[in-house]
Amino acid sequence: MAGNSRDPGRSVTARALSVLTAFDVEHPRLTLTGIAQRADIPLATAHRLVRELELWGALQRDPDGRYVIGLRLWEIGLLAPVNGRLREAALPYMQELCETTHDNVHLAVRDELDAVYVEKLTTPRAVPIVSRTGGRLPLHATGVGKVLLAHAPASVLHSCCETGLSRHTAYTITEPGRLGRELQGVRTRGYASANEEMTLGNCSVAVPVHDASGTVVAALGVVAHSVRADVTRLVRSLLPAADGIRQRLAEGERVNLDALHR
Amino acid sequence: MAGNSRDPGRSVTARALSVLTAFDVEHPRLTLTGIAQRADIPLATAHRLVRELELWGALQRDPDGRYVIGLRLWEIGLLAPVNGRLREAALPYMQELCETTHDNVHLAVRDELDAVYVEKLTTPRAVPIVSRTGGRLPLHATGVGKVLLAHAPASVLHSCCETGLSRHTAYTITEPGRLGRELQGVRTRGYASANEEMTLGNCSVAVPVHDASGTVVAALGVVAHSVRADVTRLVRSLLPAADGIRQRLAEGERVNLDALHR
Repeated sequence: MAGNSRDPGRSVTARALSVLTAFDVEHPRLTLTGIAQRADIPLATAHRLVRELELWGALQRDPDGRYVIGLRLWEIGLLAPVNGRLREAALPYMQELCETTHDNVHLAVRDELDAVYVEKLTTPRAVPIVSRTGGRLPLHATGVGKVLLAHAPASVLHSCCETGLSRHTAYTITEPGRLGRELQGVRTRGYASANEEMTLGNCSVAVPVHDASGTVVAALGVVAHSVRADVTRLVRSLLPAADGIRQRLAEGERVNLDALHR
Repeated sequence: MAGNSRDPGRSVTARALSVLTAFDVEHPRLTLTGIAQRADIPLATAHRLVRELELWGALQRDPDGRYVIGLRLWEIGLLAPVNGRLREAALPYMQELCETTHDNVHLAVRDELDAVYVEKLTTPRAVPIVSRTGGRLPLHATGVGKVLLAHAPASVLHSCCETGLSRHTAYTITEPGRLGRELQGVRTRGYASANEEMTLGNCSVAVPVHDASGTVVAALGVVAHSVRADVTRLVRSLLPAADGIRQRLAEGERVNLDALHR
């Protein structure tokens, strides 16, 4: 029981969870053998665990017999606050932004050293981008990432620099000193921008989303063509949207508190 | 291990999964005691399982110490085909529908006797509705539900009638014979409508979404004010959107097949 529960073989629960971890965006459909290999467990164990997970609805079979993540696990995952509270509050504002800008609209939160994309809305006219809902990108190279990093504890920036600031284009900021000054600017200006720092030709602009207590809980951003992006205009659209989300989060908090005191 | 269990027949995996099942939309945040009670397991067992689930990221703590579904479980849930394949293909068309109709736009799939709402987009001008992403509604009383029921095996309609057709308003169809004729009409016309059958004042209109093989895999619908709903106009917006989704699903299938044969 002691130690790292991600280590397969530690406990039955850890092994059952390792079956789920075998799935990722590059491997959303797996055979039983594939699961056993990727989870690093014997085939017989995989067979037994997969059967239990399938019975419960955490896994299900595709028409071709391969396993995929099941509807029930998806339903339970949606109960995470990042969806039930944050995404639900933000979605109408994101739709409005998408309508007015015709660009990609992002909502992201920080998990350790990654920006996790909670929702991504796009239009046929928007530039193609690498993010996807539930996907992760590094913090130092995008608008939403910079906002999250600028409002994270200093230790997070230290860890990012220690891990190494990955270079994605010639314009990615990879020197710790320059990144620190850039983040200071993000805090002062109230928004972040990243011009061709993740993808050539794309510019992203983002603002912080606060909760009722004033804590930055997410970043709201737009990704546009770098040549046609009007940063000032985008910030002017983003700020009231972020404020609308803050208000809806505060209303949700009040509902929660009322429920606690009932 | 089985000694302190209230149900010695339940495996460790089943008990770990029962911890997750303790959470639902009415109970998205639980104390340890709450989890033990709702999962029907001893407190000591709950403590051990919750700790493992928390280490892995399936659960996490709220600022007030209560447990919520974790970011990692949400991320893995998003790998379900209903999200990764269906929702991603449909989202741009749903946004467009939402922009043109200014009403609620739904995407739903059938799971047993329920319509499961895969995505719901709404606008400030839209009528308030009871559905939510990841939520469930009965098949016989909404537009998307009727489409899914009309294209399900006959045994599903039998089961629905046997279980009993719940009445939601004075206009809900609760007689099996009438429902059967209504579904025949849905198949003939190519769309379904439900006027104040789930909620007074609301009208829903829906069309089937086919995959590349011609199977109905989902229903796409709009919920509008019953007085201002123009069914013909709504159907005219829904049909090309459903066809666009079918094309994107077919493209996705081709990518999958290519990956299989690589």
